[in-house]
Amino acid sequence: MNPPTFEPRDPDYIERVHASFNRQAAMRTLGATLAAVRPGQVEITLPWAEALTQQHGFLHAGMVSTALDSACGYAGFSLMPVEAAVLTIEFKINLLAPAKGEHFRMVGIVIKPGRTVTVCEGHAYAIDGGKEKLIATMGCTLMAVFGRDNIQG
Amino acid sequence: MNPPTFEPRDPDYIERVHASFNRQAAMRTLGATLAAVRPGQVEITLPWAEALTQQHGFLHAGMVSTALDSACGYAGFSLMPVEAAVLTIEFKINLLAPAKGEHFRMVGIVIKPGRTVTVCEGHAYAIDGGKEKLIATMGCTLMAVFGRDNIQG
Amino acid sequence: MNPPTFEPRDPDYIERVHASFNRQAAMRTLGATLAAVRPGQVEITLPWAEALTQQHGFLHAGMVSTALDSACGYAGFSLMPVEAAVLTIEFKINLLAPAKGEHFRMVGIVIKPGRTVTVCEGHAYAIDGGKEKLIATMGCTLMAVFGRDNIQG
Amino acid sequence: MNPPTFEPRDPDYIERVHASFNRQAAMRTLGATLAAVRPGQVEITLPWAEALTQQHGFLHAGMVSTALDSACGYAGFSLMPVEAAVLTIEFKINLLAPAKGEHFRMVGIVIKPGRTVTVCEGHAYAIDGGKEKLIATMGCTLMAVFGRDNIQG
Repeated sequence: MNPPTFEPRDPDYIERVHASFNRQAAMRTLGATLAAVRPGQVEITLPWAEALTQQHGFLHAGMVSTALDSACGYAGFSLMPVEAAVLTIEFKINLLAPAKGEHFRMVGIVIKPGRTVTVCEGHAYAIDGGKEKLIATMGCTLMAVFGRDNIQG
Repeated sequence: MNPPTFEPRDPDYIERVHASFNRQAAMRTLGATLAAVRPGQVEITLPWAEALTQQHGFLHAGMVSTALDSACGYAGFSLMPVEAAVLTIEFKINLLAPAKGEHFRMVGIVIKPGRTVTVCEGHAYAIDGGKEKLIATMGCTLMAVFGRDNIQG
Repeated sequence: MNPPTFEPRDPDYIERVHASFNRQAAMRTLGATLAAVRPGQVEITLPWAEALTQQHGFLHAGMVSTALDSACGYAGFSLMPVEAAVLTIEFKINLLAPAKGEHFRMVGIVIKPGRTVTVCEGHAYAIDGGKEKLIATMGCTLMAVFGRDNIQG
Repeated sequence: MNPPTFEPRDPDYIERVHASFNRQAAMRTLGATLAAVRPGQVEITLPWAEALTQQHGFLHAGMVSTALDSACGYAGFSLMPVEAAVLTIEFKINLLAPAKGEHFRMVGIVIKPGRTVTVCEGHAYAIDGGKEKLIATMGCTLMAVFGRDNIQG
């Protein structure tokens, strides 16, 4: 199943996504980079780092979630109108394999955009010795929030 | 519904949980403390920190997940035999309110222990001005892993 | 954690929940009864029936979901204004034990009501030989829908 | 992302899946047919039926779940050894659009098989006037069960 094609409502969606991403201090803590922003699809990459690990030296499932949630959130945000802020309502993550690798690639795509509620899917890949492996999948529901002073972008 | 009472299989479960928690570098990144370890119930606390925030200054949903996943994981681990390691199979988190507060309290409890598969629930609370508020709930499935050299504790 | 207490916005919420429940043909297929309706809390009961089983003779996980989703949905609906219709955005169910028993009791409670989005939790119990056992837990997100001609109640 | 290709461990997996499906009385209640069985991929079809509806005349989310859970369960079962039985540990479903249509097609695929734990994804489609629309996605975790007398197939 190919992801559907979407038309962004804000022509400056790429800048808007980058500006919001840059305000997420958590992304700096992760060492994460916004690798690609397309309408309804966002890619985030990060290197393995000891500071993000669980007890076996793998990336902590929650850290994988952090990057994947941002990938999904910004995939949704890329399709929202300029005045919308985005909040995650819920997500579910399945950890398919230990998050072991040199680099990680997190892909979030919109599968159903909506005025208020948007549904996304995320896929996390570990890159190890040049080989890429699917390590986690996420289902994620976002809400567009309007007109709240303390929640912008 | 009261959480059921459990009998730990390893009498030294408290030390075992602390030892594994201390090996999670991600918990140091979060500034997290293991506040309570009981059979099938674990509590983790952390202060708000800029490094953990999303674009609105709230704790990133993924960072809430990281602490809550560890609380659930160690709740399950507390009931496992001494030779078991614990991995998260999946979790789902519902964000009920923005993670806004001075401190956060993450509570994980086992609702169904099993030889291989254990199911937990997590509740995240924000403490702000002395008042505690439920901000997230998690459902989490864990797997006990045995005899893998690179996955211990 | 005790469920919070809620004030219904529609004084006739009990009748409204019953009327909508009675329009769910799926509930008749399940042999389900609306056993209790309180503000933000709904209970549905049903007997075991061969027509609802999977290959081992237990209630099919999907049939447990059907009753539990309705319990959660009507818990949310009980707090909504009179002009709202309710739709499920998503739910997650953990099957803790095979759905084996003479009767089943499904309890849905609201943990976070909202103008648009409401979050609920569900618990499914099997009653066998007079003993009740927790067999499944659900986390569920609902949406209040307004002003759509084909979606009422 | 293309689904991976799998080698079934039981050469008679098609018959085994059909035999188990035929023992699910819930599938008869749904009017469901096993439309395709491939290694790690199963398709179930069913017509709209009043007996399966919620209050707005759409298929009840739980009934969609029932068919989708069976599609995922049998996708996993198709790869299991002959002596395994299959149980659903948990699933999560996102309802993307009302389940409105003449026919429904439920596709379950394995994304990560395992000796004990298998992870699947499901997609539900509504067919209306010859057009197919994605209405729900599922993430599902299965467990292979061995040597329990009352849980076979």
